Amino acid sequence: MPELIRVVEKILSANDKLAVENQQMLDRAGVFAVNIMASPGAGKTSLIEHTIIDLSSRSTPLRLGVIDGDIATSLDADRAAAAGAMAVQINTGGQCHLDAVMMQKGLLQLNLEEIDLLIVENVGNLVCPASFQLGTHKSVLVASIPEGDDKPYKYPGMYSGADALVINKIDLLPYVPFRMDYFCQGVEILNPGIVTFPVSCRTGEGLEAWLDWLIDWVAKNKQSYEKS
Amino acid sequence: MPELIRVVEKILSANDKLAVENQQMLDRAGVFAVNIMASPGAGKTSLIEHTIIDLSSRSTPLRLGVIDGDIATSLDADRAAAAGAMAVQINTGGQCHLDAVMMQKGLLQLNLEEIDLLIVENVGNLVCPASFQLGTHKSVLVASIPEGDDKPYKYPGMYSGADALVINKIDLLPYVPFRMDYFCQGVEILNPGIVTFPVSCRTGEGLEAWLDWLIDWVAKNKQSYEKS
Repeated sequence: MPELIRVVEKILSANDKLAVENQQMLDRAGVFAVNIMASPGAGKTSLIEHTIIDLSSRSTPLRLGVIDGDIATSLDADRAAAAGAMAVQINTGGQCHLDAVMMQKGLLQLNLEEIDLLIVENVGNLVCPASFQLGTHKSVLVASIPEGDDKPYKYPGMYSGADALVINKIDLLPYVPFRMDYFCQGVEILNPGIVTFPVSCRTGEGLEAWLDWLIDWVAKNKQSYEKS
Repeated sequence: MPELIRVVEKILSANDKLAVENQQMLDRAGVFAVNIMASPGAGKTSLIEHTIIDLSSRSTPLRLGVIDGDIATSLDADRAAAAGAMAVQINTGGQCHLDAVMMQKGLLQLNLEEIDLLIVENVGNLVCPASFQLGTHKSVLVASIPEGDDKPYKYPGMYSGADALVINKIDLLPYVPFRMDYFCQGVEILNPGIVTFPVSCRTGEGLEAWLDWLIDWVAKNKQSYEKS
């Protein structure tokens, strides 16, 4: 009697299947990738600029690539390229988020063998990007002090799905009403224990911890790449 | 020989048809309605609070209604109700914008005969709400100084479709890099001559002109209602 073989296959949507392919493509080249998401104007591009400039000028520099998603213009990719990264702009043509198809188009335009860390800057939107896997290894949410302290409560999908939270523009804390306790309580309910980096991209405060976190993940990724 | 009759009918999407019905419902009751859109945290709810408190306490008070769209929570409708308006919360259940179906559900929960001005607060999103007519008479975009001066260039759909632009948080101009000339140039390219209100909901600066604009439109709407 033939052995019964059960094939349990997770049914993935077309987007998620392609996201898995994207991650395999990254893993074959030993590239660690993060998907950076935020509202418009929270400071994604500034954070990426600082990250490129710092990590590419260390004694052991990292080689950075950027895929920039925007409705229109190449302003963000221009800034990333000016800061020293290999940068590709994806214009979504009105679509409010990146998806795995766009991500794959971006990946095919980069020489992944020459990249250690790939930063994907999603479209500025606190809702839709959370629903589309791209194939990156980690999702990072950038919050911003002047956005207000109620955002975790009002945009739970984005806050619950992130692997790390950067709280930007802390230099504006003296000038706006923002209850950090109330904000952090909302974050903790949705995403207990999430690693959090309060920073100011304007003054540079707090960026060191964020950069260390990235460096650490790139190193871990390299180790598992070299073992395989 | 039978006369040839040409019926030229504008083909509307299901959403747009319902939006027309919504506007007819408003017009039958003499209600003037605005759709307020912005990024998360630009200050829509604060602007609405100020508007309710001011307009409902004048010597000739306006009667205000609010339909509040959010992914989750009733925080915004609670604030509108506390400020003195008839308020309805619509939770979109994850959807990133209000549509005409949700608007109609909101309208049916309000006694329109007792409202002069209906404010619809859309989901915080600088992309998707621009594509969905609700049946309001005017669309208002709230920009915010800390979002940065490149937003018109990066979110052209939202900037080109608005009837009025409120530029909020001008009290933060001394603390953030924001080139007003560059911002206004982007706005002017997309939406020449759009009426613009630089305000601070925190200090109250500039709100008078915004309130006058609303009062003026409510009065015009009442006149055409009484004639019909």
